[in-house]
Amino acid sequence: MANKKDFVKEITARDDDFAKWYTDTVLKAGMADYSPVRGAMIILPYGYQIWENIKQEFDGMLKKTGHEDMTMPLLIPESLLVKESELIKGFAPEVAWVTQGGTEKLQERLAIRPTSEVLFSDYYARAVHSYRDLPLKYNQWVSVMRWEKTTRPFLRTSEFYWQEGHTVHATAQESHDETLSVLDMYEKVINQFLAIPTLKGQKTESEKFAGAYQTFTLESMMADGRALQSATSHDFNDKFAKAFNIKYLDNKGKQQYAYQTSWGLSTRIIGGLIMVHGDDRGLKLPPRVAPTQVVIIPIAPNEEVLQAATEIMTDLQADVRVSMDQSDKKPGWKFNEYEMRGVPVRLEIGPRDLKQQQVVLVRRDTGEKIVTPIADVHTKVNELLEEIQANLYQMAKDHLDANIFTATDMTEFKKQLGNHRGFVKAMWCGDPKCEAAIHSETKATARCLPFKQEQLSDKCVYCGKPAKKLVIWAQAY
Amino acid sequence: MANKKDFVKEITARDDDFAKWYTDTVLKAGMADYSPVRGAMIILPYGYQIWENIKQEFDGMLKKTGHEDMTMPLLIPESLLVKESELIKGFAPEVAWVTQGGTEKLQERLAIRPTSEVLFSDYYARAVHSYRDLPLKYNQWVSVMRWEKTTRPFLRTSEFYWQEGHTVHATAQESHDETLSVLDMYEKVINQFLAIPTLKGQKTESEKFAGAYQTFTLESMMADGRALQSATSHDFNDKFAKAFNIKYLDNKGKQQYAYQTSWGLSTRIIGGLIMVHGDDRGLKLPPRVAPTQVVIIPIAPNEEVLQAATEIMTDLQADVRVSMDQSDKKPGWKFNEYEMRGVPVRLEIGPRDLKQQQVVLVRRDTGEKIVTPIADVHTKVNELLEEIQANLYQMAKDHLDANIFTATDMTEFKKQLGNHRGFVKAMWCGDPKCEAAIHSETKATARCLPFKQEQLSDKCVYCGKPAKKLVIWAQAY
Repeated sequence: MANKKDFVKEITARDDDFAKWYTDTVLKAGMADYSPVRGAMIILPYGYQIWENIKQEFDGMLKKTGHEDMTMPLLIPESLLVKESELIKGFAPEVAWVTQGGTEKLQERLAIRPTSEVLFSDYYARAVHSYRDLPLKYNQWVSVMRWEKTTRPFLRTSEFYWQEGHTVHATAQESHDETLSVLDMYEKVINQFLAIPTLKGQKTESEKFAGAYQTFTLESMMADGRALQSATSHDFNDKFAKAFNIKYLDNKGKQQYAYQTSWGLSTRIIGGLIMVHGDDRGLKLPPRVAPTQVVIIPIAPNEEVLQAATEIMTDLQADVRVSMDQSDKKPGWKFNEYEMRGVPVRLEIGPRDLKQQQVVLVRRDTGEKIVTPIADVHTKVNELLEEIQANLYQMAKDHLDANIFTATDMTEFKKQLGNHRGFVKAMWCGDPKCEAAIHSETKATARCLPFKQEQLSDKCVYCGKPAKKLVIWAQAY
Repeated sequence: MANKKDFVKEITARDDDFAKWYTDTVLKAGMADYSPVRGAMIILPYGYQIWENIKQEFDGMLKKTGHEDMTMPLLIPESLLVKESELIKGFAPEVAWVTQGGTEKLQERLAIRPTSEVLFSDYYARAVHSYRDLPLKYNQWVSVMRWEKTTRPFLRTSEFYWQEGHTVHATAQESHDETLSVLDMYEKVINQFLAIPTLKGQKTESEKFAGAYQTFTLESMMADGRALQSATSHDFNDKFAKAFNIKYLDNKGKQQYAYQTSWGLSTRIIGGLIMVHGDDRGLKLPPRVAPTQVVIIPIAPNEEVLQAATEIMTDLQADVRVSMDQSDKKPGWKFNEYEMRGVPVRLEIGPRDLKQQQVVLVRRDTGEKIVTPIADVHTKVNELLEEIQANLYQMAKDHLDANIFTATDMTEFKKQLGNHRGFVKAMWCGDPKCEAAIHSETKATARCLPFKQEQLSDKCVYCGKPAKKLVIWAQAY
């Protein structure tokens, strides 16, 4: 009898219903599944391997720059969590509380970490004594919990995985530099590894991280024109040091407060990966992050074909993540399946190909079919993987460039945002009231004050008073 | 002024107070620290890197044998947790409960996972339909929570890190085989990577995992003669399948229950690593797991010495984890520090050495000093690392062999256990009452029914009735 897996998986067309297309793709590509726990998802092997690849890439960069992995407890006593007043104000509505341990009702509630600044600060207060102890550059790869009402796999779940870096330095300059140098590393991973273009800038006061002195961000545009905050890096200056009394003796024997940063990249970026590159046939993975870069599909295989396919696989395995599907499912099913999973290159080989000592390589990004002599397969595959990586980035970059608009008044602002569902650049006076008004009228938030400032006009797009900064506005995930 | 780190760290002598020595070593080697959260520790970079090395080694083995990493939610609804009655009976007293999410009091309590069988079973019930879907061999690297009253870093903490493998198979034979094949992989990692010898066997009914059909275990002997359960592997047969209704259609079109396993290796093994190999100078790490395998210490260095040391380091870096301490601390302090941290080989080089084109290599395991021509350093270091790995295993094995005793009556049993603080082999009738009585009289538990059975006598060591099995007994951590 036919296995249910033998049927082609249908997904909603992307431009018909972007949200439904997204969820279909996540589920049918086998990246994640719903769980019996409200707001939490199961990350299935295919999705988890993508996260592991991102982790390996970024962790390598962290280690090369002297950051060390370690791990803080999952639970935070309430008295510790409330110690920095802005942080707790920001996170209090989202905290899951443990009140019972075994048979014992707890004296003090324990929060499941929504983020771990207070644990690192508490530790730094005990561990930092002298300027010789600084800097400490720590990082942990863990999951955190933020109670959410509406959830979507990867994009918004109560529990999500991330890395959170927490560093402590001797001076304000050093913590500032660290914040920006980490932002550059994020940019590298997101642009070059995930092929996602980003806009770099600073968050406004209303959008910055609770408790931060300054927050810097990388913003990406999804295929529907909405923004995803791809990674953020926070400079705390001495705010946490003052709340937690983190002091050190400088080289002149004087007590000084220490300066801290924190920064995070989460599994949300996998949502971004899907929404930037995917199409109506499903996922489209950049080769560098793809769990499988090449899938070999023998067509009507006889013994010779299987042998040739196996030899090609063995040869590729030296530097390519390659697999072969020898199941008895039909080729058409297999083509659909691996397109759905976003495998960058499909390699087809059948008896006629073998007779001519060739294979067919099919690109997932363009659909192009390339007949290639077996002797050239290895070279050609490596070329294609490079080309696909570059092409996916370029396509996303073109989409971003084509969908950033400018506006000098609110009529234009609303028209641009409404027509195109893209980003709008507009000048701002700096008043949070104008920012709030724009949000309430357009649902767009200030994504960032881009590092690359422009002078579009002299006036705030909302109130007409003198403009201070260019802001990039967008509706966001 | 002198940095507090410039003073030699003193630790309690191991044979004076083993427990105190253990804690001193953990703290002073910088492996872990206490946290403001009861029962939870901070795993510091040095300890965490050891865990990462173990993880990388074992995860590689898992992937080669077709196991896939993924991740289940942290929280488990109470209704799901209680679905397998023996499991919840075993874990109920140790569960931490979330009762509040944000501002909302939860309708149903959520457990922080003490272990994840129910989540995997719930998923398998939805994902498994046909014999073609089987086996599924999943694994996750996460932390779990078991509310503990008394805690010690690594050995017993409310939160600990582990991997938990969960597989589902078509037949009882397959789940049985999987359980034992994973046990063999654990044996390989623990013996060959961590240099810890193990005894392999089956747990008694009273000692097996809550809800398991059979539990298999690897037991190790610590330097004080007590046992540490180093890893366990559980065969569930169809017990969870019946509780969760996990069924598949076999190749004859008939509905069948599926067969499951689970198995775990945790950060407790780092406690074992310390307690098996450590001595009065601190940690002693087997080279394969050591974050730093060789530390270079330039003595009274001039420019030439530093240059030579750097060249040696660069050369070694190709295949050795090597670091250099160029700080202005005294050589004696450095020697103590890296001995405390258990670095397998210290490389000393000073002006006189350089003049003779030689270095001094010092083994952490034996203290032996080996004068080596610079030209031979790379070869010699690799030889030494192999020798140290083998020697640490052999020393631990000798200690284990020398401290396993036999007893045919309880007088002998108590004398052996009391005098030597080792393991006692004795025959058992199979009655849990005798097992409980032995425990209450000696504090020893049945560690396992070893696979290598012997016939020491015909009678149960406790009741004198006909003996069924040889048991290894010990006081355990």
